[in-house]
Amino acid sequence: MTETGRPRVVVVGAGFGGLWSVRSLADAPVDVLLLDRNNYHTFYPLLYQIGAAELNATEIAYPVRKILRGQENARFRMAEVEDVDLDRRTVRADGREVSYDHLILATGSDAHFFGVEGAAEHAYPLKEIEEGIALRNHVLERFEEAARADDPEARRRMLRFVIVGGGPTGVEYAGALAELIQGPLSRDFPDLDVDEVSVLLVEALDRLLAAMPEKLGRYAGRRLGNMGVDVRTGVAVEEVGADRVRLSDGTALPTDTVVWTGGVRGDPDAGRWGLPTGDGGRVRVNDDLTVPGHPEVQVVGDLSGFRQDGDDLPMIAPAAIQQGEHAARNVRRQIEGRPPEAFRYDDPGMLAVIGRNHGVAHVFGRAFTGFAAWLLWLMIHLAKLIGFRNRLVVLLNWAWDYVSYERVVRLILPITPKRGPGAEGRGRPEAAE
Amino acid sequence: MTETGRPRVVVVGAGFGGLWSVRSLADAPVDVLLLDRNNYHTFYPLLYQIGAAELNATEIAYPVRKILRGQENARFRMAEVEDVDLDRRTVRADGREVSYDHLILATGSDAHFFGVEGAAEHAYPLKEIEEGIALRNHVLERFEEAARADDPEARRRMLRFVIVGGGPTGVEYAGALAELIQGPLSRDFPDLDVDEVSVLLVEALDRLLAAMPEKLGRYAGRRLGNMGVDVRTGVAVEEVGADRVRLSDGTALPTDTVVWTGGVRGDPDAGRWGLPTGDGGRVRVNDDLTVPGHPEVQVVGDLSGFRQDGDDLPMIAPAAIQQGEHAARNVRRQIEGRPPEAFRYDDPGMLAVIGRNHGVAHVFGRAFTGFAAWLLWLMIHLAKLIGFRNRLVVLLNWAWDYVSYERVVRLILPITPKRGPGAEGRGRPEAAE
Repeated sequence: MTETGRPRVVVVGAGFGGLWSVRSLADAPVDVLLLDRNNYHTFYPLLYQIGAAELNATEIAYPVRKILRGQENARFRMAEVEDVDLDRRTVRADGREVSYDHLILATGSDAHFFGVEGAAEHAYPLKEIEEGIALRNHVLERFEEAARADDPEARRRMLRFVIVGGGPTGVEYAGALAELIQGPLSRDFPDLDVDEVSVLLVEALDRLLAAMPEKLGRYAGRRLGNMGVDVRTGVAVEEVGADRVRLSDGTALPTDTVVWTGGVRGDPDAGRWGLPTGDGGRVRVNDDLTVPGHPEVQVVGDLSGFRQDGDDLPMIAPAAIQQGEHAARNVRRQIEGRPPEAFRYDDPGMLAVIGRNHGVAHVFGRAFTGFAAWLLWLMIHLAKLIGFRNRLVVLLNWAWDYVSYERVVRLILPITPKRGPGAEGRGRPEAAE
Repeated sequence: MTETGRPRVVVVGAGFGGLWSVRSLADAPVDVLLLDRNNYHTFYPLLYQIGAAELNATEIAYPVRKILRGQENARFRMAEVEDVDLDRRTVRADGREVSYDHLILATGSDAHFFGVEGAAEHAYPLKEIEEGIALRNHVLERFEEAARADDPEARRRMLRFVIVGGGPTGVEYAGALAELIQGPLSRDFPDLDVDEVSVLLVEALDRLLAAMPEKLGRYAGRRLGNMGVDVRTGVAVEEVGADRVRLSDGTALPTDTVVWTGGVRGDPDAGRWGLPTGDGGRVRVNDDLTVPGHPEVQVVGDLSGFRQDGDDLPMIAPAAIQQGEHAARNVRRQIEGRPPEAFRYDDPGMLAVIGRNHGVAHVFGRAFTGFAAWLLWLMIHLAKLIGFRNRLVVLLNWAWDYVSYERVVRLILPITPKRGPGAEGRGRPEAAE
């Protein structure tokens, strides 16, 4: 109970799952406290476009406080959650304890390197906005470095980009990177020999887009091949070094850039907080999303180990949104003295784009490819972006890229200021780590 | 001479001075090499809007290679210049030597702390894009931190923003910050007591905007006062600490944020390279912009210690642009066997905005204030921004802010990724410093 005499719902994580929980509680008789270590919600499906110099961070990130402005019963606190005590029903964030009557955990997932040697140190993950920016900086820097280099072998290493993982993120990033290189960068670097540039997509399974019908994976592979991407399926990455990568077929390739889209797992914090985790680090939940023995705790989104018909749910936005809305309904039911209800995922399908004008879609029970899939992807992603202005600017950027064959965000911005208090990360505890 | 048999002109710095030199040499019989440590040109007059969450970096930064794409005789290299050897006529950049027939130095200026204790360590300078981003992050973080804090004294310290320097940058940033706080942030933080927030503008001289007619400085002071800014003229900063600032009138104020716009000086590298520097670290030049004894070396922009009628030129874009164009003309003259020509600055006036709808202008020999000055500022800055798309997006952002009383870029983006190679600054040598 809070000062208002209403039950307190604490929601951890302002991703799709957490945010939709909060919004669905808008007219419930509760006080909602949303915690996140960032002050913004990230539109993850477009994160790869940050890494491909296509969008600015502001265009896929939206201030949480702005989203919640109209919601009387919700408060936000930007804080890192350090601990959850299920027995005492408290959450500790930035050294302060908050008690809850209901808890919705939505801390999402993290890159998973499956113990591949050197991957955690040397590969570029693509799970956070700052990682997208770091990847963009790194890719553009490699071209500047290659323009200064005399040794063709060194240039080939600098200009070899290895993307690990043939899921939607890997496929979409490979396509966007190939287009960035063939378009804007080849015009920016007229002296560059394009034969020295290579983009590889490596997938351990024997086909791309394993979560989609086989014909879509084949189409994606063909399209990427046409765009000059060297697609290698059935090949795993065995070791990542600072300047090379070793594959399971014995190949060792000199490269400065390994992009890791090869796996995700539930936020490892959940295990440390004493929650029961299963496959892929996801929290084992009942069929109503509650944690066994704790009907007041629900887990939604990527972190939720909910299984339907024997399968894990995909770690995608629609699943998180549906679970977030469901968790809010369950909180209302429990407040009214009714038991939580079982969750059922309504699969809206999956989409991916492969460069300009080409996409794959598995929706309405149909699998189709090409321009129609691309257009559908475009419309759905624009419609789902939060905020009218973001939508407009993203549309403008895409339209500009489309008609001009340009890329908008071609800046190498230093990650850290060279001086002043910002350089020491004084402001933000986690930036100093 | 280069392989083409044409003289090589090396231009160091892609700011206004350097870039306009290069562009003015477009149809000259020379090979131009432009060096800069960044791959973009920065539109400095709007840098303060990055720090005030008003614009994205892409909107005031433009890729150099894109600008030079149409210019056959120009090449760009992203490289840090380490040394200039005037006798051997070489420049060393990133370990490689380049010889020149003509050299145009345009490395600009740097923040100058006048030996104020603690300023270099604790104050936020506003001279580079990454410093603008660090300042934005820091300001927004202070509000998030204050929202978590119980102690009113601590909150007042977190929410006190001290801006040092009453020139255009200090005045414009103070106005933009006051508006950010009164508008979007006070709506984002409904629980915040606005009486705990304070913005101070401290100027050692006895009035603001000393380079403009006195009536404009008085107007700016009144306007800022109406916006809630505590303007203190005739007061110098004596010491900056991590959590306080000490002024010359004996006041000591607890604060986490001191923004330094209090002074600039010529890039200190010039002195290390053996160039003769004078007041404010600017390189002493002849009346034709050449370095004494070195007619093949010219210095333009903030770095140039050119004096006209006994006065230093202001360190502003129009001076740099005119000098850059003049230096290009001088190179042509020398190639044709004629001596370099004396430079004469044609003063187009100065402008500054103080928040919404208000500005000061000293142009066409007239000093005026208010809406007309604001509108003139808006039109001139939009017209001067490089790139049609940038102009459009900046206009869109401003229009959006204007009609919605919002701020577009309200994200706290970590300065450094928490993991992966980006966290170690592997990619960029200077980022690791």
